[in-house]
Amino acid sequence: MTDAYIQDIDRYEGQPVTIRGWLHNRRSSGKIHFLIVRDGTGFLQAVMSKKAVGDEVFTRADHIGQETSIIVTGTVRADARAPGGFELDVSGFEVVSPSADYPITPKEHGVDFLLDRRHLWIRAERQQAILRVRHEVINAVRDFFNSRDFILADTPIFTPAACEGTTTLFPVQYFEDTTAYLTQSGQLYNEANAMALGRVYCFGPTFRAEKSKTRRHLTEFWMVEPEVAWANLDDVIELAEGLVASVVARVLDRRQRELKVLERNTSKLEAVKAPFPRVSYDEAAQLLKDKGLPFEWGGDFGGPDETALSEHFDRPVAVHRYPSAIKAFYMKPDPARPEVALCVDVLAPEGYGEIIGGGQRLDDYDLLLQRIKEHGLPQEAFEWYLDLRRYGSVPHSGFGMGIERVVAWLCGLEHVRETIPYPRMLYRLYP
Amino acid sequence: MTDAYIQDIDRYEGQPVTIRGWLHNRRSSGKIHFLIVRDGTGFLQAVMSKKAVGDEVFTRADHIGQETSIIVTGTVRADARAPGGFELDVSGFEVVSPSADYPITPKEHGVDFLLDRRHLWIRAERQQAILRVRHEVINAVRDFFNSRDFILADTPIFTPAACEGTTTLFPVQYFEDTTAYLTQSGQLYNEANAMALGRVYCFGPTFRAEKSKTRRHLTEFWMVEPEVAWANLDDVIELAEGLVASVVARVLDRRQRELKVLERNTSKLEAVKAPFPRVSYDEAAQLLKDKGLPFEWGGDFGGPDETALSEHFDRPVAVHRYPSAIKAFYMKPDPARPEVALCVDVLAPEGYGEIIGGGQRLDDYDLLLQRIKEHGLPQEAFEWYLDLRRYGSVPHSGFGMGIERVVAWLCGLEHVRETIPYPRMLYRLYP
Repeated sequence: MTDAYIQDIDRYEGQPVTIRGWLHNRRSSGKIHFLIVRDGTGFLQAVMSKKAVGDEVFTRADHIGQETSIIVTGTVRADARAPGGFELDVSGFEVVSPSADYPITPKEHGVDFLLDRRHLWIRAERQQAILRVRHEVINAVRDFFNSRDFILADTPIFTPAACEGTTTLFPVQYFEDTTAYLTQSGQLYNEANAMALGRVYCFGPTFRAEKSKTRRHLTEFWMVEPEVAWANLDDVIELAEGLVASVVARVLDRRQRELKVLERNTSKLEAVKAPFPRVSYDEAAQLLKDKGLPFEWGGDFGGPDETALSEHFDRPVAVHRYPSAIKAFYMKPDPARPEVALCVDVLAPEGYGEIIGGGQRLDDYDLLLQRIKEHGLPQEAFEWYLDLRRYGSVPHSGFGMGIERVVAWLCGLEHVRETIPYPRMLYRLYP
Repeated sequence: MTDAYIQDIDRYEGQPVTIRGWLHNRRSSGKIHFLIVRDGTGFLQAVMSKKAVGDEVFTRADHIGQETSIIVTGTVRADARAPGGFELDVSGFEVVSPSADYPITPKEHGVDFLLDRRHLWIRAERQQAILRVRHEVINAVRDFFNSRDFILADTPIFTPAACEGTTTLFPVQYFEDTTAYLTQSGQLYNEANAMALGRVYCFGPTFRAEKSKTRRHLTEFWMVEPEVAWANLDDVIELAEGLVASVVARVLDRRQRELKVLERNTSKLEAVKAPFPRVSYDEAAQLLKDKGLPFEWGGDFGGPDETALSEHFDRPVAVHRYPSAIKAFYMKPDPARPEVALCVDVLAPEGYGEIIGGGQRLDDYDLLLQRIKEHGLPQEAFEWYLDLRRYGSVPHSGFGMGIERVVAWLCGLEHVRETIPYPRMLYRLYP
């Protein structure tokens, strides 16, 4: 008897196999049980007739609860009506460990109820599909950069100073007398790494103490951040386009089954091909006004603004050259028009908003020092960062892409909380 | 003129190219400058003759400091004596940004001096080689699991309770009235993920507030942790063997240049092939006694014990079945001999010590609850973990592998601090 995973079931047509898994659901009709078995790789209907297994086994199978762990043996049979194209004709059945009163039933549950039971909720077909898409997105991102000879250089989680703003920082007592802050972005370290290794990326968890409850924010989220020595704004817009197009194509290529479970309209994703439309902040501001939104030049786009902009295009849109005043201290001003910065945000379509933010970094020592002072940042903590402009400064650019937002968009989810196994939010630290 | 990266220089023999990089080192002999240029992908000697570039450029090149950023154009020429097999005959030269009094010179510096300047130290050839090996190790690990259909499922960094011990936890104020702890291991969450997705791994930073200064510990380090539903101890020993052998083979295959820079004795690494020797804790204890070490049955191996054991074998050794009393609460006791646990540590050879720890998890609800109580852990915080034994428990096993220790071993380093771009230690939070 061969041990088989459900995802590979098509290799075993007509053969006897053993499946180890859990009872996901079932129905019975007189002398036949239809057991939906899940094993983590897929779902399979196991057809058990009283005739084939005998009275005793048949009756035992009648009394097991949802999520009971079981070992089922049987013969694989092709069936065009089955979701995966195959069913199992059961010849043997063993209960490994029982499950009574499993809390998540096929009926509707509220989201707080489900999040309190996230360790069980992830067993649901829909949640598994999302997590597999997440897996695919992350691997697509890594393959994209690795195949272009970028070096993965991890940036630290414990940092001595804030990268952007201070109100959303998580402080940590670092032994007796020091305070560390959890990283909000690997970018500053990425810049040092790019000066050493040329083209780099970091990919890790980042933290923001977001006190607001929105559908786009988690306190702990994963971000990939490439940084390229000698690259300018146009270079990284092109890199960002290539990355997003490549990730979307990969998910469409390899995760059709999951997108179907999620009832995702894939035609919208198929339109996502480079080049993306590029509009300046000025043009975007005008577009919002034309749509009747109360937007004034100089402000940052709020959630509804981003939604309006991203609904306007059939693919992601690159919005560039925001006012320098609303952007971080390390952004390079446009030499042709210093009141705007050489920066870019990429907004996902269908109202999903910002998925990428980045641009060209300030590479002039004097101007950077001036900005650090203007922003009231402690110069001492940034001496190492200033060193990058002291010793052989070069033009360089990069960006960050938030994984959860990309997954929410690709899966067509309303909220990012389902895009990560254990979401962390303002009032959510368990399980 | 084609822009080229030094790592691809062999594609351009006889052709004119432009290299953008930094002056790494140089020497001059009368009418010729030999400039070592680095661009992050490699090092290349650029030969500049006064005749080819003229007096003005030649004199300018005479006065630039180490790490000055430069753009060099010239023709690629094969030269068997050059480290990479090629040199550049310079026809054009441009200084982008100066560098004066670069602090890290070719002379010897103390390690604290260098760690204070880690953002610059990583530009050194040796440090770059280590970071490229790290990159390769991480990608080898991911490819290993992905090619075996494991799903990457990220476990949270913010956790409500400690996984092992409490003295080495970093607490974080989580908004007004909650304390979170930074994860020490994704394992418990991994177990829930394995019940949902079958075969999973997590790969992220983990944190231990290690107050001791040893050559094997960082406060922030990266760990990969696979977890497999239905697997037993032997299954994961085999998985661990396969992983380590695969990572070593990949680094030997793709990073010979880096290992040469590091002067690593690769014959020692070539011996690392599965199967690895397996010894029980009992046998290991006897071996230590035979070597004259003062080891008593029942204790954990200290640094010197691990060193002695790992020097005894020519490849990694799997030590299994440690006393249950010294292992974590979630370890499954050996049914044949409950005073030992179904656990395994893999020790790297050449004295590098533990790189992997894992085993089979306790899958019985009553026994797990008893252990939680015996260890004085708050039952409430572990209710979700107990749920995994309430609803369809199955045998399952996994392990964790510390990336920095593997990199230290493969690179032949004395201390883990050079294996990560920005090491975090007891007195080290900057840069």
